[in-house]
Amino acid sequence: MSFTEIKGGVCSAKGFAATSVAANIKYKDRTDMAMIFSEAPCTCAGTFTTNVVKAACVQWDQKIVDSGKPMHAVVVNSGIANACTGQEGFDACEATAKAVEEALNVPYDSVAVASTGVIGMQLPVDKLVNGVRQMSKTLECSDDAGTKAAKAIMTTDTIHKEVAVTFQIAGCDITLGGMSKGSGMIHPNMCTMLGFLTTDLNIEKQLMQEALREVVKDTFNMITVDGDTSTNDSLILMANGLAGNAMITEKNADYETFKEALFYVCRYLARKMAGDGEGASKLFEAKVVNAKSKDDARTLSRAIVGSNLSKAAIYGCDANFGRFLCAMGYSGAQFDQNDVELYFESVNGRLKVFDKGTPIVFDEDEALKIMKADEVTVFVDMHEGRANATAWGCDLTYDYVKINADYRS
Amino acid sequence: MSFTEIKGGVCSAKGFAATSVAANIKYKDRTDMAMIFSEAPCTCAGTFTTNVVKAACVQWDQKIVDSGKPMHAVVVNSGIANACTGQEGFDACEATAKAVEEALNVPYDSVAVASTGVIGMQLPVDKLVNGVRQMSKTLECSDDAGTKAAKAIMTTDTIHKEVAVTFQIAGCDITLGGMSKGSGMIHPNMCTMLGFLTTDLNIEKQLMQEALREVVKDTFNMITVDGDTSTNDSLILMANGLAGNAMITEKNADYETFKEALFYVCRYLARKMAGDGEGASKLFEAKVVNAKSKDDARTLSRAIVGSNLSKAAIYGCDANFGRFLCAMGYSGAQFDQNDVELYFESVNGRLKVFDKGTPIVFDEDEALKIMKADEVTVFVDMHEGRANATAWGCDLTYDYVKINADYRS
Repeated sequence: MSFTEIKGGVCSAKGFAATSVAANIKYKDRTDMAMIFSEAPCTCAGTFTTNVVKAACVQWDQKIVDSGKPMHAVVVNSGIANACTGQEGFDACEATAKAVEEALNVPYDSVAVASTGVIGMQLPVDKLVNGVRQMSKTLECSDDAGTKAAKAIMTTDTIHKEVAVTFQIAGCDITLGGMSKGSGMIHPNMCTMLGFLTTDLNIEKQLMQEALREVVKDTFNMITVDGDTSTNDSLILMANGLAGNAMITEKNADYETFKEALFYVCRYLARKMAGDGEGASKLFEAKVVNAKSKDDARTLSRAIVGSNLSKAAIYGCDANFGRFLCAMGYSGAQFDQNDVELYFESVNGRLKVFDKGTPIVFDEDEALKIMKADEVTVFVDMHEGRANATAWGCDLTYDYVKINADYRS
Repeated sequence: MSFTEIKGGVCSAKGFAATSVAANIKYKDRTDMAMIFSEAPCTCAGTFTTNVVKAACVQWDQKIVDSGKPMHAVVVNSGIANACTGQEGFDACEATAKAVEEALNVPYDSVAVASTGVIGMQLPVDKLVNGVRQMSKTLECSDDAGTKAAKAIMTTDTIHKEVAVTFQIAGCDITLGGMSKGSGMIHPNMCTMLGFLTTDLNIEKQLMQEALREVVKDTFNMITVDGDTSTNDSLILMANGLAGNAMITEKNADYETFKEALFYVCRYLARKMAGDGEGASKLFEAKVVNAKSKDDARTLSRAIVGSNLSKAAIYGCDANFGRFLCAMGYSGAQFDQNDVELYFESVNGRLKVFDKGTPIVFDEDEALKIMKADEVTVFVDMHEGRANATAWGCDLTYDYVKINADYRS
């Protein structure tokens, strides 16, 4: 590893400040708005939901990322998603961005906005604007401010998610940090949550966008909680170049170093989100090896962690391997069940349960011991090629139903 | 309507007998095997799971249907699915069919077999064969025998499903009846359950197969319980011609009369299965009208009833319409949210909640009243074309998790 994990998040890289506020948008007794700000202009990259029904803020941010103009800030609110809100929704994005322009003297079209929460409800614009005004006075370059921002963007999340790493490029110390939220309405299709990454690296925009897109495929796009791809999924990466390295303009060793660090940060946040899925009691991982193609490996592993029946079996610590094979079978990938080996794995052991078309009689007590761990892996050797992939999800519990049967109230 | 619903099921048509037995395959205190038998040879048609991992019995039956040879019997067991069972699984199919040949003097390759239950466990062949021997002595042409057969094939079903209709073709009285089972591992992709239909109609094989395939698209393939397409889904239609009509050999008015009756029977059984989904407390219907194409209409309506978040909202009687729009958005169909109108409907009323891109402020008490009905419909007018489709599912409840977290034991 050419990087080191450090304590921190979105404020770890040079020149990034953050803050949060209780704006009373929908939640009554907690912070519900956050801002990330860089006075130095940032090169930005982003990936967004593939859902046809895109929230107003997603359309707003895509325009900024596509424009090639610099980004200075991201304003996020939790509680209301600003999706399915028509013209009024777009007006809310603009009002928020203009409030930042007024308070912090950066162009309004350099301000990204992001929302998460209930769909189909209008944002209270006055509260948003007031929130921005208050936040513009409390920006801080500190770990504490970053953590508070990560907490303000949570909805049904039970833990906040942040991480940071440092690495060296041509003698310069580079820092990359990030935060994310996401717990329900999570399903691989870019990127099933809100994520914000900041770095002081100096790198060309197109190259950064390419790195982000590639890394997302094997990290954020490999998690699922409930199969529901949100209207609001957004991942934004801001790079202000303050580390002082010569700009990376080609896919050299420096680029690879950055990409490796980016992969680590994205994978860290993605796994945290999967394990904190709504109502989840454990992290459920599927590793598929020796598939015919990378696409097949991804499809198969995601189908396993995405199946309600598999998820319920994981919750019940039931080594009911047929459900995992069934999910692989309807995933869309083609394979021969007579090639497949399937194992259950955890810190408590490893057990082969299916061997090339035939079930293996196994010791139920041993299986139960393995399944009872906090993180359970289904390991599948396809024996049909050389492509591997890993997907992450969580179990399906009573609490998932409870949380979602009455989400609005 | 050119047909009449009558009391009955698989024994209603002339010349069909049925029976059941407690063979002790996995369940201990109930019947778990059923047989349908026609001494007169039957033209047969079938549709089967699209899952790559097909149970041994599915492969067995497909061969019979494809061969063009007549069918005489179907033997069904519940408890063990005979999927992911390798060569031993195929041997079990053959042994079952040969037991029928021996006991009832029909060729073993005229005997279909079907199984439902746990995947990855071997069937006890001796118990199967004993079951067949006992059943061959108790075949009966009675409604009661049909009902008992419908009960023997249940797994987590809470009610048995059967229906029959009569209609006239060229002065002949024709009867069509059927039974089905299915509660979990149900998702549209042909046909997500076991279903057996019998008729005394005289019709050409290819024409019957075509009618079945078309009808299935808008009936069995439009239901979902949990998004998991089973390894064992099978729908078999047997026609022994004993009604004495001149063989239907073209798509004339008689063919349409038959297809209409077939549609009714399939829709009836499909709806019953959706409403009896594992743990379900209500039937959840999605009607999509004025979509660009039939495929789009089907895709959109299935996405709505397939979404965990939508299903949880239906359980919670929460008119959280954003979840339904979100599901439509990731379904794969292309549309503009600014064209869409969305309503909630039930016997208790009808409420518009989303109007061409903009949410409507609605009365929550009225919404709650509508949502509290036993059958709730989400009605969506796409305003983009003229194609319609309806899909059926159920709510997601604590009991779904309970049933599936410990299914094997």
